[in-house]
Amino acid sequence: MPRNFADRLLDKIDEMKNPSVIGLDPRIQDIPKKVIQNAIKTTCDYSKRKLGELTLDDKFRATAQAFFDFNVGIIDSTCEIAGICKPQYAFYDQYGHHGVKAFEDTIEYARSKGMLRIGDKKKNDIKDTAQAYADGALGVVELADGSSHSSFDLDALTVNGYLGSDGIKPFVDVSKRHGKGIFLLVKTSNASSGELQDLVLDPVHGGRKVYEQMALKANQWGEELLGERGYSSLGVVVGATFPTDAVSVRKKAEKAIILVPGYGFQGGMGKDTVPNFNKDGYGAIVNSSRGINFAYKSKDFATAPENYGKAAANSAESMRNDILTAMKDAGIIPDALK
Amino acid sequence: MPRNFADRLLDKIDEMKNPSVIGLDPRIQDIPKKVIQNAIKTTCDYSKRKLGELTLDDKFRATAQAFFDFNVGIIDSTCEIAGICKPQYAFYDQYGHHGVKAFEDTIEYARSKGMLRIGDKKKNDIKDTAQAYADGALGVVELADGSSHSSFDLDALTVNGYLGSDGIKPFVDVSKRHGKGIFLLVKTSNASSGELQDLVLDPVHGGRKVYEQMALKANQWGEELLGERGYSSLGVVVGATFPTDAVSVRKKAEKAIILVPGYGFQGGMGKDTVPNFNKDGYGAIVNSSRGINFAYKSKDFATAPENYGKAAANSAESMRNDILTAMKDAGIIPDALK
Repeated sequence: MPRNFADRLLDKIDEMKNPSVIGLDPRIQDIPKKVIQNAIKTTCDYSKRKLGELTLDDKFRATAQAFFDFNVGIIDSTCEIAGICKPQYAFYDQYGHHGVKAFEDTIEYARSKGMLRIGDKKKNDIKDTAQAYADGALGVVELADGSSHSSFDLDALTVNGYLGSDGIKPFVDVSKRHGKGIFLLVKTSNASSGELQDLVLDPVHGGRKVYEQMALKANQWGEELLGERGYSSLGVVVGATFPTDAVSVRKKAEKAIILVPGYGFQGGMGKDTVPNFNKDGYGAIVNSSRGINFAYKSKDFATAPENYGKAAANSAESMRNDILTAMKDAGIIPDALK
Repeated sequence: MPRNFADRLLDKIDEMKNPSVIGLDPRIQDIPKKVIQNAIKTTCDYSKRKLGELTLDDKFRATAQAFFDFNVGIIDSTCEIAGICKPQYAFYDQYGHHGVKAFEDTIEYARSKGMLRIGDKKKNDIKDTAQAYADGALGVVELADGSSHSSFDLDALTVNGYLGSDGIKPFVDVSKRHGKGIFLLVKTSNASSGELQDLVLDPVHGGRKVYEQMALKANQWGEELLGERGYSSLGVVVGATFPTDAVSVRKKAEKAIILVPGYGFQGGMGKDTVPNFNKDGYGAIVNSSRGINFAYKSKDFATAPENYGKAAANSAESMRNDILTAMKDAGIIPDALK
């Protein structure tokens, strides 16, 4: 049996002394011009066409190339600081199959650098269809010649539980078989997340909020995926922007690892992430995307565009220190992270 | 301004005298062997490699080729019966960029045959990320050379509203600008959909069920997308497997077009779809995927694998007749569909 994902994740946090996650969310308008020009040149070489003669397909290819090249710079600069990355599928998928190729190449490169890869795809569907997503993202798919092979080489995936257990079970089953994990959306980091997630249920349904009900579901669904270190490979997502809600989720899903987005650019700080951790100093990982990817444009880490990797490293180090200091102040830092 | 999607959809229903949607959900284990063998041969020709020498990349390519070739057969056989198709992204996306290319080629082929294309992607994310999905699926994306172009050429997209309005607004805005539409998950067709969707809210939150609250949201969000024919380009999804819930949704989102999955294979019948229609005989479209795609394997339309297209056509005609008869019996069939 492959090693449980939650165990692998905690091992990685110990190894790097860092519970941070490096988001990999490329945006063409924020990528340094030099990176884009190089990607266009690579595409011209490949297509044997001059700049003015590039086809539409070439232009999509060049965009995907720029994404991959940019990500290589971010991964190279941060992989010795943090051991986990989270590419957001939207930024790739929006460019069709060329973008998806860049996503695949990015996770393969991150793998080669020793990083665990969480695909932020927020997948959700009914039973058989969820099975297809689960097989593709975390398992193996059947090919035309009857053989089977993995498609995306991810360690974990974000999922949306609005469809209930038969839409989640395929992900749990595949995770169990392949040592993978999922993170269920519970309380998202965006301003309007409360419109549905904060609605209060009738007392006969426990009088809880919808997101709290989702946390209980996570706890129940995650029992099948418990690892040796006491955590489940079925984690949950709780935005750093809602630290008080984290307290409630932490209680309801004790063994879940909370993926905490919204650090940095979205306003969350190290101290806001503390309620997501258990007293043992584990149970949470914290993601920053824009704050690291485009640190070179930020106030705190501003530098020339060609030094975007160095700025990302500085931002990632600052984030790690901020979180570890907050954990130390709260008296919950594990020995392995000291 | 491009013509409103809801208007285009109703025009198409009138033109074809049919509110059916042809699902395009290829599964390698259900595709006739001959189609797969031809796809492998095409791949060998392309890669200039023999069968035993195909690389892993070739095998993914052959699978995608089989999907596209199979879909061409389904589209050719059904495009004169029904005017709308709905490829389910999971079955393509699970094969990575090769699968996504087959999805793109399929929607382009369906377009060339005059069909409207609903991408069943159940997308959901926070503001800026939802914007990326919206631009990619329904709008235009910025390319490396600074130009902009559409990526997926879809008419509409399914979305999941668990994240609230800031995750939906980008889709609404892009739909408005480009004459596109979205279908919001309200009550899904699967057995466990009620676990979250049927929870009853506290009386201070209206005492409604969660899915009813989502229907009210749809009604509110859809106001911006009203067309000349009285319907909104923001529709909702309600499974044919829950006809009584459809009554409640129909009341709460009067101007929404309900996309009704679950017909056929999942158990829904023509009469079950009636509550989704308004008294004017519009306001719903009904999807069947497996029941049409793999009709050749079914009890009712069984035939030799090479006649899978003919079986799909027979199944699609039977479905249309079933729904129109049910509408006639209920006294709600519009003149244009008689």
